[in-house]
Amino acid sequence: MKNRIITISREFGSGGRTIGRKVAEKLGIPCYDAELIHKIAQESGFAESYIKDAGEYAPSGFLSSAFANRAFGPTNEDYLWNIQQRIITELAEKGACVIVGRCADYILQDKADCLKVFIHADMKYRGERIVTEYGEREETPEQRLKDKDKRRAAYHRFYTNMKWGHAQNYHITLNSGELGVEKCVEILEKLY
Amino acid sequence: MKNRIITISREFGSGGRTIGRKVAEKLGIPCYDAELIHKIAQESGFAESYIKDAGEYAPSGFLSSAFANRAFGPTNEDYLWNIQQRIITELAEKGACVIVGRCADYILQDKADCLKVFIHADMKYRGERIVTEYGEREETPEQRLKDKDKRRAAYHRFYTNMKWGHAQNYHITLNSGELGVEKCVEILEKLY
Repeated sequence: MKNRIITISREFGSGGRTIGRKVAEKLGIPCYDAELIHKIAQESGFAESYIKDAGEYAPSGFLSSAFANRAFGPTNEDYLWNIQQRIITELAEKGACVIVGRCADYILQDKADCLKVFIHADMKYRGERIVTEYGEREETPEQRLKDKDKRRAAYHRFYTNMKWGHAQNYHITLNSGELGVEKCVEILEKLY
Repeated sequence: MKNRIITISREFGSGGRTIGRKVAEKLGIPCYDAELIHKIAQESGFAESYIKDAGEYAPSGFLSSAFANRAFGPTNEDYLWNIQQRIITELAEKGACVIVGRCADYILQDKADCLKVFIHADMKYRGERIVTEYGEREETPEQRLKDKDKRRAAYHRFYTNMKWGHAQNYHITLNSGELGVEKCVEILEKLY
């Protein structure tokens, strides 16, 4: 099996982005993550901070009820979804790469040769990681993770109809908390 | 991380049992699958064919409505579950091994150092495999797989409260149809 693209879906705080970067580095191919957000920002005119959230998460709070309502035509999220889809497809056509997040596995399913990866870890591991990576917030790490997990799952269900975190959707899933980031990188490098 | 036990959960027809045997062989440790059924048969007095089914699957057809009904005390499945739990715990205490199926991951979660694995594959791959391995039946391979999947998921939900096939329940999940049995064996051997 010749895999040209590695798509990495990941739970918030699991280190999936770090794993993606390291695998890409070892394989000598580009990794699209922040670059992807930058590209989408350029094309859409939206702020990067908005894309970071709205391109992977269903809205939180009172906005969530409006998320699935298309009575007034396409939403900003739909607009973003279309741009995201086009950019990811173009990048995949350009050559081998690692793409982190943004439902790339779903977007590319019939268009490219993908190794579909899912990275996850337990609450404790992720909680510690997000405090180190992104600093403290008013909410507890658990609250932040639960909110993110819930919104990401809702986003996926809405746009891809895939069940978030179901093993059957991926070629390989890895618990980075138990196996460690380096081990995950090694396995994916060998599998490519 | 020192993993002494490898537990392999698997979809019917995914080759999880073959992978378990091969990994155990490479590592020079025992693999419990048929032996486990034999032991449970000896202790319970039930036939091996009954244990094979009732120790991992919820009953099919009209019996399924009685499965969760404990108004008349423990069922045969409960009795089997208790023996299964004890035998698996004893085997895990004896030393390093691979255990295929029988909810060993759940049973051992607080008792042993486990590498928790889930093996799955798509319908097409599994359908072809079960015809080769177990021969033709009156039902189509798809019908057989759907029935097995459904009953195994129900069994798991009832006894373990775990969602069958959820990546978060395992340290690693592998699509044997896409990656191939040999590749799966190699990865698990290295991870141990």
